[in-house]
Amino acid sequence: MTRDKITRSFQLHYKIKMLLKISNSSCCPTCFLQLVLPPVSTVMAGLLKRALRLRTALRCLCDYNMLSRSTATLSPVDFHSPFLTCSSEQVLASTRKLHAGADGSKVSPSAAPERLPFCRVTEEDLAFFRKILAGRTIVDPDLVEPSNVDWLKSVRGSSEVLLRPQTTEEVSQILSYCNSRNLAVNPQGGNTGLVGGSVPVYDEIILSTSLMNKILNFDSISGVLTCQAGCVLENLSFYLEERDYIMPLDLGAKGSCQIGGNVATNAGGLRLLRYGSLHGTVLGLELVLADGQVLDCLSTLRKDNTGYDLKQLFIGSEGTLGVITAVSILCPRKPKSVNVVFLGCETFEQLLKTFQLCKSMLGEILSAFEFLDSECMRLLNTHLKLPNPISDCPFYIVIETSGSDPTHDAQKLHNFLEEAMTSSLVSDGTVATEEAKIKALWSLRERVTEALTHDGFTYKYDISLPVERIYQLVTDMRKHLGNRAKSVVGYGHVGDGNLHLNVTSPSKDPALLAAIEPFVYEWTASCRGSISAEHGLGLKKRNYIYYSKQSQAVALMGNIKAMLDPKGILNPYKTLPDNLKQ
Amino acid sequence: MTRDKITRSFQLHYKIKMLLKISNSSCCPTCFLQLVLPPVSTVMAGLLKRALRLRTALRCLCDYNMLSRSTATLSPVDFHSPFLTCSSEQVLASTRKLHAGADGSKVSPSAAPERLPFCRVTEEDLAFFRKILAGRTIVDPDLVEPSNVDWLKSVRGSSEVLLRPQTTEEVSQILSYCNSRNLAVNPQGGNTGLVGGSVPVYDEIILSTSLMNKILNFDSISGVLTCQAGCVLENLSFYLEERDYIMPLDLGAKGSCQIGGNVATNAGGLRLLRYGSLHGTVLGLELVLADGQVLDCLSTLRKDNTGYDLKQLFIGSEGTLGVITAVSILCPRKPKSVNVVFLGCETFEQLLKTFQLCKSMLGEILSAFEFLDSECMRLLNTHLKLPNPISDCPFYIVIETSGSDPTHDAQKLHNFLEEAMTSSLVSDGTVATEEAKIKALWSLRERVTEALTHDGFTYKYDISLPVERIYQLVTDMRKHLGNRAKSVVGYGHVGDGNLHLNVTSPSKDPALLAAIEPFVYEWTASCRGSISAEHGLGLKKRNYIYYSKQSQAVALMGNIKAMLDPKGILNPYKTLPDNLKQ
Repeated sequence: MTRDKITRSFQLHYKIKMLLKISNSSCCPTCFLQLVLPPVSTVMAGLLKRALRLRTALRCLCDYNMLSRSTATLSPVDFHSPFLTCSSEQVLASTRKLHAGADGSKVSPSAAPERLPFCRVTEEDLAFFRKILAGRTIVDPDLVEPSNVDWLKSVRGSSEVLLRPQTTEEVSQILSYCNSRNLAVNPQGGNTGLVGGSVPVYDEIILSTSLMNKILNFDSISGVLTCQAGCVLENLSFYLEERDYIMPLDLGAKGSCQIGGNVATNAGGLRLLRYGSLHGTVLGLELVLADGQVLDCLSTLRKDNTGYDLKQLFIGSEGTLGVITAVSILCPRKPKSVNVVFLGCETFEQLLKTFQLCKSMLGEILSAFEFLDSECMRLLNTHLKLPNPISDCPFYIVIETSGSDPTHDAQKLHNFLEEAMTSSLVSDGTVATEEAKIKALWSLRERVTEALTHDGFTYKYDISLPVERIYQLVTDMRKHLGNRAKSVVGYGHVGDGNLHLNVTSPSKDPALLAAIEPFVYEWTASCRGSISAEHGLGLKKRNYIYYSKQSQAVALMGNIKAMLDPKGILNPYKTLPDNLKQ
Repeated sequence: MTRDKITRSFQLHYKIKMLLKISNSSCCPTCFLQLVLPPVSTVMAGLLKRALRLRTALRCLCDYNMLSRSTATLSPVDFHSPFLTCSSEQVLASTRKLHAGADGSKVSPSAAPERLPFCRVTEEDLAFFRKILAGRTIVDPDLVEPSNVDWLKSVRGSSEVLLRPQTTEEVSQILSYCNSRNLAVNPQGGNTGLVGGSVPVYDEIILSTSLMNKILNFDSISGVLTCQAGCVLENLSFYLEERDYIMPLDLGAKGSCQIGGNVATNAGGLRLLRYGSLHGTVLGLELVLADGQVLDCLSTLRKDNTGYDLKQLFIGSEGTLGVITAVSILCPRKPKSVNVVFLGCETFEQLLKTFQLCKSMLGEILSAFEFLDSECMRLLNTHLKLPNPISDCPFYIVIETSGSDPTHDAQKLHNFLEEAMTSSLVSDGTVATEEAKIKALWSLRERVTEALTHDGFTYKYDISLPVERIYQLVTDMRKHLGNRAKSVVGYGHVGDGNLHLNVTSPSKDPALLAAIEPFVYEWTASCRGSISAEHGLGLKKRNYIYYSKQSQAVALMGNIKAMLDPKGILNPYKTLPDNLKQ
């Protein structure tokens, strides 16, 4: 190893001081994704204060939010307008307009389809609900309103009833009744989804799991947690951390999202690289089917080969097959040591080689391998005044390690960094071991979304690709769009092959959109990628499913839906494409 | 730390010498589970030699095999008898007898049900098969025979046709034809299953995946392997190890079992504690449905939330919902360092505390935590002449670590052992780092099954329980049986909560069986355990499903079966209980 390299190695370890310059300097320290809209009448007193803070933050965000600026119906004022006085037809027109082209003539595949012939809620229905949910059958428009609008404020329903059951039995009674009455139901968790899956499209009854927030059991030997579906992810994390465990998933929205919703949407998040998907960590589910039948698959066993693993079908089904009422999940031990490294690479090929080296040398302690490109860094500098902690590079990497021995982890990291530099894979870097500094480095990756909102109207894509192809899509998109776009940026989870591709424009630009789509979907399909890596299909992407799924597979999904929910009352208009009879 | 403890700590590290006494001393060095019956006409030349060796070993084994001794129809001579000349009725009588009580009058729930009214194979059918599978439509009784009998030789069918497709298209043509003709089909992988799921019950056509053994792709960046379903697990392991990866599962039967069969049965095995179940590691499947339709879910992506995750339904469905033709699976890096420790504990409570300590101190490098009781050790000593490498204890633990840095791993292990002794959790122990010695220590755990076969007729149970309850079942069973049993032993995967409970008797003993069952199933059900942790239900356990699954769940399984295979041609009589219309 040359003297130069050794100097650079030391430089890496001590560049940490630079981090002090970037931490806590922003006016909005919370991650963009954490700015979520909590239910108004949340019962957990401790959450109320945060709810108010988040609401203020959300209002604040509206001032520059691309969506509020681009859609006339979604200004902060409208947010509390009495939508419930509109007729269904007006709401339909308004909703469809949200998804229409600029001239309003061409309906996008993401627009809501026609309302299906479900019955409408009558006074008799309300009397029934009030009987089983005294004080928890909400019809006050102001109180129902937050549950009618999604976090991005891109979809709004016109439900007049919000039901807040506390028990599985209550959920069962509600669904049994709704099914017999042909009333549509929109199951709702923390309402933090990004594809319009968590809110009603028309007048579906909102069935909120927010009051189903009890931890039922934690087995400290096996690490298996069993809880009701409405437990907020962050509350579960706090509970477990006191017991030396962690949740196997972590999301920006953790302060509001609920474990039932996480499972229903098969949430990915930051720990997937290390702990795998929910299909592996969820051990059991309790569900209520469309007809009110309770399906008890709430096993807490790691191994159980007695028949088909039914619960798997509901993981990622977005509330269209059943309502998840309880979850059991395998939790890992809390790591004793966490380190974060921020590195710069000259080419994406070098970045991929660094990923390989990292997997080999950090092995079992690697817990995240994320990237952002120089365009992202430019936006972070320009809009959020976050300085680049290292020298300018075309690509930046955030690597996190989590292990059980701080000395061993530091040594592994040192060896890896030395090798990465000796091989000229990385050109600069800095490390952090203290929590505040770790957060500061992470913010460079996590706040890209926020920086983008300041750059103009943003077209957002959440794509899964074979890992070696993920940046090619960004490069090809840049070439394809030429100077029609303001910025074309790429960032995401290299370890999971998950690219967040974003294209910005000074304002909403239908011509630009027409240049992006279907190009982006066709490109993704040509690599057998997924047009929705972790966000799901919901309302907005349901008709794009064929880009990632064979028609026979989609038809089979339709059969499964018909078998489990023959009247189609559960979360209609979501997940499955319109051409399947729902 | 007292001087005594330090001495014991050193003792632990150097006791390894004792291992030399126990390695390679047995006449049968292969694990009992590895002695499997390979297909006669295996095409892979390299496998032929091993096949002959294994066959010899199997014959040898028959001399003392509890099953051959206890069932008159299954002597080594009968193994090659011309079963195909028997009428269906004779075969039925013979098969049912296998499952009947000693007096032959009472039919056990594990006995085969009546033959369903499928059509019988005609000359026209054979002509069709020969047209699409020239030279691979096997009707020679001697060649079909090995596929008619399961590895335990406890179930035998009377199929007259063995089909050996090489492509998905061929499988599709076969199933399309069989479905239209109402011909039943038994999909077969390596035929190493333990519950009678892998062989025909009557005259089902055997559809073997053995010739579908091509590796289709390996992505060395993501670690995703894609291959045909008939690839032998060990061959995949060899292929990956050359590329610095390993398979995420490992089984005693790896020399013969096939990845398609592993997925179809949701095989558990030795690496589950570390890498999780196949529901998490399998990324994609290609399947052929009962009507011949090809379902392409062969994604290689870690994240894909576009619609329902259909492939999950087929993992563990034992060939009853579709035939798996290709698999893509996420493979971990090959560990650079492996250590094995053999420890002794005075109580099962101490063993559980050691497990907790182990999870905390070994953290991310822990790859196995197995146990056996003193009764197992007695059988190993008595029947296999394997000496106990440490002092006598009521309980023994095998711990394995796998990591990326030998020095770090050794240090973690040292710290753990020191703490375990300081806390008096373990009373003695020995460690191994070299491969031969590691194998010798592992054999103490792996050869318990073999030792049991020498102890008499064995009643075997594969139970999943909350980890803190697993040994209570053994204790309760001992009390319950009193001196009616010869030995009641417990061993298994503590890390997975998986107990192997075995009860021996000088000979087959219906009164003893009546004392064990339903006691064992009721006990398991009372703890919400699983009556089949990793072996599946197959033919033998299908009717016990209600001990672990709610009737609504079983009914839903029946609906899924009816939806995907309306004529019930795929692996009939398996997995689902007889009271569901198949």
